[in-house]
Amino acid sequence: MKRISSADNPTVKLLHALATSSRERRKLGQTLLDGAHLVDTWLIGVGPPPLLVVSESGSRRAEIAALLGRAGEGTEIIELSDGLFARVSPVDTPAGIMAVIDIPPPPAARLGSGSCIVLDAIQEPGNLGTLLRTAAAAGIRDVLLGEGCAQAWSPRALRAGMGAHLALAIHEPAAPARLLAGFAGDIVATAPDAPESLYELDLRQPVAWLFGNEGAGLSPEVAALATRKVCIPMADRTESLNVSAAAAVCLFEQVRQNMAARKLGSEAT
Amino acid sequence: MKRISSADNPTVKLLHALATSSRERRKLGQTLLDGAHLVDTWLIGVGPPPLLVVSESGSRRAEIAALLGRAGEGTEIIELSDGLFARVSPVDTPAGIMAVIDIPPPPAARLGSGSCIVLDAIQEPGNLGTLLRTAAAAGIRDVLLGEGCAQAWSPRALRAGMGAHLALAIHEPAAPARLLAGFAGDIVATAPDAPESLYELDLRQPVAWLFGNEGAGLSPEVAALATRKVCIPMADRTESLNVSAAAAVCLFEQVRQNMAARKLGSEAT
Repeated sequence: MKRISSADNPTVKLLHALATSSRERRKLGQTLLDGAHLVDTWLIGVGPPPLLVVSESGSRRAEIAALLGRAGEGTEIIELSDGLFARVSPVDTPAGIMAVIDIPPPPAARLGSGSCIVLDAIQEPGNLGTLLRTAAAAGIRDVLLGEGCAQAWSPRALRAGMGAHLALAIHEPAAPARLLAGFAGDIVATAPDAPESLYELDLRQPVAWLFGNEGAGLSPEVAALATRKVCIPMADRTESLNVSAAAAVCLFEQVRQNMAARKLGSEAT
Repeated sequence: MKRISSADNPTVKLLHALATSSRERRKLGQTLLDGAHLVDTWLIGVGPPPLLVVSESGSRRAEIAALLGRAGEGTEIIELSDGLFARVSPVDTPAGIMAVIDIPPPPAARLGSGSCIVLDAIQEPGNLGTLLRTAAAAGIRDVLLGEGCAQAWSPRALRAGMGAHLALAIHEPAAPARLLAGFAGDIVATAPDAPESLYELDLRQPVAWLFGNEGAGLSPEVAALATRKVCIPMADRTESLNVSAAAAVCLFEQVRQNMAARKLGSEAT
């Protein structure tokens, strides 16, 4: 294990670039995973990363030592002083281990047969990661990120995603209009003034869900793709939900309807 | 309007203390609202705050000038240079206006007759604020924050709450066991291994919902209050939802069941 204490070291500069710059991440095709849980998930789902970085105090923790033991020959391991680690860490409360990973190649530019979500200019990486985590939990596979979205593979979106990225086909950047051409099911947008409620919609077929920017909602171009608009019924005096909360309500209403349909089906046979 | 350019000014020091210290906020009984939307909501719902602070560039924007025009005689208005404003602002992207407000007095230490949520050691102010926003949208009134929770009236939780605080009775800090003694309905916790699913539960009566820490879940003391445990059904390979997403799924399943019951009731008459 190599110890580095200088902020001028090229590897430290690489880490800083990956932590702070979406352009550098795209250029290098790499990003940063922060924390033992994510590194563990990556080791299981993908394999050893090219580089593991631990802090001095982190390397003394059993959980982190065990992760280092599972890295293969191809993985370089470096140790940074706690101060230097905190400076390059992309999160406020660094967990003592991070990995440089290769961003997986994008999936084939066509959709599977199930439901999908289209994310239009979601700005906040934490919201984006939470949305991905919710989508994976609801059994969604295809996720389309339009032009103005935060980066799905940014360290903060990865942290909020808690491993969901590995269960998803992340189309980034995607051209929603092209990918959704010929989509067999409903394309659904939520709108506060829609007369129809989410709960009146039959969601037992594949649905393409459109979710928009935290402040401005869907852009006109993406909103125009919708074949159905529904509202989420809300109490008086409230205007709206956070986009990741709205997505949770929609996607799990679909889970509920599909479960109820399967239960009916199994009772009928 | 008074202009301040020195970081040593006592008002600037007050702003910095309110932005960064939950202890100072509690001691002074005041907090910071950030952004035109929240200040507008506060002016409508509560009235003029003791202090409005604008940045030099913010004060030239029509939206912010209009807000200043609505402040009464009792409101002091100060202008900070953009650099100084950014330094005292509690958020990453300061919006050009903030208000010092008096934290409203806590509600009476008893619950209303409806559903409520109990938040146990929710750590992240953004999650907390999103939860409050979701609860208000679902028609919840009483919110109980246990000892280990982030502060509901912190600037970041206010920002994520988007005005929800004004629609809620926020019990902070609350003693859940005492407030829930004699609660008439089910006290429901979510647990990944619960055999019963959320969707099998009859939620048409008042429910006290228990939501726990982002990593550790519910503490044993709070979990022991539950009279029902339910799982949110999830796809394979996924472990859990973000707590604010889980709350959205639960609270809006209750909204759905209540709407369906009302619809049946009106069809029957």
